[in-house]
Amino acid sequence: MIASYQALCQARVDHALATLFEAPLADLGRLYEAMRYSVMNGGKRVRPLLAYAACEALGALPENANGAACAVELIHAYSLVHDDLPAMDDDDLRRGQPTTHKAFDEACAILAGDGLQSLAFSALVDPRLSELADGTRLQMVRTLAMAAGPAGMVGGQAIDLGSVGKRLGQPALERMHRHKTGALIEASVHLGALASERAERADLAALQTYAQAVGLAFQVQDDILDVEGDTATLGKRQGADIARDKPTYPALLGLGAAKAYAVELRDQALHSLRPFGAGAEPLRALARYIIERRN
Amino acid sequence: MIASYQALCQARVDHALATLFEAPLADLGRLYEAMRYSVMNGGKRVRPLLAYAACEALGALPENANGAACAVELIHAYSLVHDDLPAMDDDDLRRGQPTTHKAFDEACAILAGDGLQSLAFSALVDPRLSELADGTRLQMVRTLAMAAGPAGMVGGQAIDLGSVGKRLGQPALERMHRHKTGALIEASVHLGALASERAERADLAALQTYAQAVGLAFQVQDDILDVEGDTATLGKRQGADIARDKPTYPALLGLGAAKAYAVELRDQALHSLRPFGAGAEPLRALARYIIERRN
Repeated sequence: MIASYQALCQARVDHALATLFEAPLADLGRLYEAMRYSVMNGGKRVRPLLAYAACEALGALPENANGAACAVELIHAYSLVHDDLPAMDDDDLRRGQPTTHKAFDEACAILAGDGLQSLAFSALVDPRLSELADGTRLQMVRTLAMAAGPAGMVGGQAIDLGSVGKRLGQPALERMHRHKTGALIEASVHLGALASERAERADLAALQTYAQAVGLAFQVQDDILDVEGDTATLGKRQGADIARDKPTYPALLGLGAAKAYAVELRDQALHSLRPFGAGAEPLRALARYIIERRN
Repeated sequence: MIASYQALCQARVDHALATLFEAPLADLGRLYEAMRYSVMNGGKRVRPLLAYAACEALGALPENANGAACAVELIHAYSLVHDDLPAMDDDDLRRGQPTTHKAFDEACAILAGDGLQSLAFSALVDPRLSELADGTRLQMVRTLAMAAGPAGMVGGQAIDLGSVGKRLGQPALERMHRHKTGALIEASVHLGALASERAERADLAALQTYAQAVGLAFQVQDDILDVEGDTATLGKRQGADIARDKPTYPALLGLGAAKAYAVELRDQALHSLRPFGAGAEPLRALARYIIERRN
């Protein structure tokens, strides 16, 4: 079930994203090409899926979350472009394709990433993507800016860079992931819920618990795949994190305990969705999928 | 008169900016230090001044534009941090101090720039900085995202990088600057006017004409100073643009004609302010100052 839902979300967000990449000037062709290359790459669109699914869990049409879905995917895409730069993780390969600074050049990749971040905020306030009340949009801007910024994702990347070669304990590792990947995953769910314009405070709290558990499960499974997967399936070098001496859950807990932890997190996520009805099925399916995926 | 007004705006925006740099976690100390270093550097705060002055020109208290002033300065600061990176302009010195990637490291500078861009959007919607209606804030987010993004400033930097070593004609050079520096200067004035919550359509149009003329005058004067100034006064290497074979107005028009053009632009700017009363004096003083400044 999750595969067809995912395909649907992918088509929906890719269609919405395409409208944002119309180049206004011939001079800007290469920049737009680099931005498009960094985003329109057949990605899994997990974050847009979360936004759409949270919106549907509250009984609203998923299209309400088009702006939210584009915004979180654009932030995600920009963070990967900058993360792959030589001064950062120095990766040549992403989803089996050359990274943006390899396909273009470093300066172009820096600017494309910068432009994608601006576009994310444009997407939230773009009336072509979704019709929402001013107050709703404003809450969404606040949520995204916080999640993407130094108190969220960018902060997580800074902690991550500072922790290479260090032995982190579980609390410190958890704090790093809660910022680096967790903040944007939480924001995806939160933005989707806001876009429904039907979210009560209790709904938002339950969905936050869901998003935190799912975000962490996602990371734990990523670390497990880094040990167990092969390069062809992953689309990136297997063992890359270990080679870089980055702290991982299998290294910290052992492989077996890491797998048990992922299962526990999945169950926490499912438990938090008990107040929701059938509309939350996609969120449930995703929680199950995350720890079953092979890439 | 402009010097004391500038000092006032500088103090006002620096105070507002400081509230945005409270680090939430000890782990994030270095990132916040790099962001603070990139912003709290005694900069001239021309863009905040424009925001405050536009707000005052429409008869509102300048404090209404605190969020706008912070936002445009944060976007400006991030663009300088990324512009100075080795893969971009590769500058070691900015306002007589080591650039951010020299004082910290490249990865930290990339992340600090990214974080500053997010913070700019946070500033616009931060109720601690200014009290504004939802609809006003939303228009401001739309304006800033457009001005900062690929159709604005980032686009201008891409055009600029693509034009090194090329002979640009005046229309192409103008197009580049209208994006690279003009878009954010226009946005500064526009955001300040929106923050007054008193701007009529005709006011916004007149102020846009002002901002375009002032933005271009600023650039023409920068190019003139690159030829005439000395390194100590400029805080950057004199002749840097020429050494890099970047297209400049003196190179294109000759030094005398470039100076005459700057005067013409100042007069255009002043002319556009004729509908405004005494509240627009700071904007007028700035238009005069821009072509008289030595750094």
